[in-house]
Amino acid sequence: MKQETKLRILSVGAEIIHRKGFNHTGIQEILLAAGVPKGSFYNYFKNKEDFGLQVIDYFVEYFEGLAKGVLEDPSSPPLRRVYILLGHFIEFFKTKDFELGCPIGNLSQEMGDLSPVFREKLRFATHAMISRYTKVLEEARISGEIPNDLDIPNAAAFIVSSWHGALVQMKIMKNAAPLENHRRFIFDKVLRF
Amino acid sequence: MKQETKLRILSVGAEIIHRKGFNHTGIQEILLAAGVPKGSFYNYFKNKEDFGLQVIDYFVEYFEGLAKGVLEDPSSPPLRRVYILLGHFIEFFKTKDFELGCPIGNLSQEMGDLSPVFREKLRFATHAMISRYTKVLEEARISGEIPNDLDIPNAAAFIVSSWHGALVQMKIMKNAAPLENHRRFIFDKVLRF
Repeated sequence: MKQETKLRILSVGAEIIHRKGFNHTGIQEILLAAGVPKGSFYNYFKNKEDFGLQVIDYFVEYFEGLAKGVLEDPSSPPLRRVYILLGHFIEFFKTKDFELGCPIGNLSQEMGDLSPVFREKLRFATHAMISRYTKVLEEARISGEIPNDLDIPNAAAFIVSSWHGALVQMKIMKNAAPLENHRRFIFDKVLRF
Repeated sequence: MKQETKLRILSVGAEIIHRKGFNHTGIQEILLAAGVPKGSFYNYFKNKEDFGLQVIDYFVEYFEGLAKGVLEDPSSPPLRRVYILLGHFIEFFKTKDFELGCPIGNLSQEMGDLSPVFREKLRFATHAMISRYTKVLEEARISGEIPNDLDIPNAAAFIVSSWHGALVQMKIMKNAAPLENHRRFIFDKVLRF
C-alpha cells in the first residue's frame, strides 16, 4: 500500500513535471492531483530534489521495461524492433495531444545547467538509453541490416539526441510530423547502406 | 538611449532565461543583472509574457543576421556554409561552458504546452530557421552538392530539430561531443549521396 502510494505520486508527479517543468511545479500540486494527503510527501521523499531524482529512476525503469519487451523481442529482426519502439512512442504522444515530451530530455534541458546532482543522474539515464540502442544496433550489424562501418555508439547517441529534439519540435507543432520525420531520417539515411 | 536600455534588458534577460527557464526567472533578477532601475521594466514591456515574446523576436533577428552573413555568403559553396554556421554555434557554446542551449528550443520545450501565444511565436521562429536551411539546401541541390531526390523541407526541419536535441544532450554532458556528433551525422548521412 505504501509502495502503491509512492508509485502514484511518482507517476502523477512525473506527468505534471513533464508538462510544467520541475521548478514550476509545487509539491502540494502533485499531492492534490495524486489524491494523497498533504504532508505525507515526506514519508516517501526526502525533499523535492529527491523526488525529481526518483522521477528519473522511475522513467529509466519504464524505458528499460519497454526496451526489454521490444528491443529484445526475438520475433522481429533487430532493426524492426527500433522502428516498433519509436512507433510505440509516436502512438503514445498521439494519445497525449503531443504534450509532455520525454522526462529525460525535458529535465536535461531544464536542470542540466542548474544542478550537478540532476546532471549526473540524467547522464546515467541518457547513457542507459544510448546503451539499449547500441546493443540492438550491434545485433542489426551482425544480421547484416546496417553497414559494417557504421559508428554504432555515436549513431545510438544521435538517435537519442535527435529524438529529444523531435519532441521539442512536437511540443510547438502539436502534431506527429517531427516524430515521424525523425524516424524517417534515422531509417532512410542514418542507418541505411 | 531608451532603445539601448531595452536591448540590454533583452540580451541579459535572454541569457538568464536560457540558463534558468522562463517561469523560474523573475523580472527583478533580470533588471538587477542588467543594471537597470527597478520599476523601469514596464517602460519597455507590457508584462513578463510580452518580454518573453520579445526575447524570441530578438533571437530570431540574431539568427537572421547570422544566416544572412553565413548562409548567404557567396565566397563558400552552399553546403560549406551550413558546416560553418554549425561550427560557429559549436564555438559559441565552448565559450559558454556548454550552458544555455538555444532559446527557441528551450522555450519550445518549456512553454509549448503552457501558452498558445508562446507556441504561435515559437512556431514562427522555428519556421524561420527551417526556411533558412531550406533555402541554402536548395542552392546546394542546384550546385550538385546533395542528392536530387532529398526531401529538402523535411531535411531542413530535421537539421533544426536534431540540433535542438543535440543541445539538450550538451547541457548534461557539458562537452561539444553531442554537437559535433550532430554535424557529423547530418553531413555524413543525411546530406550525402
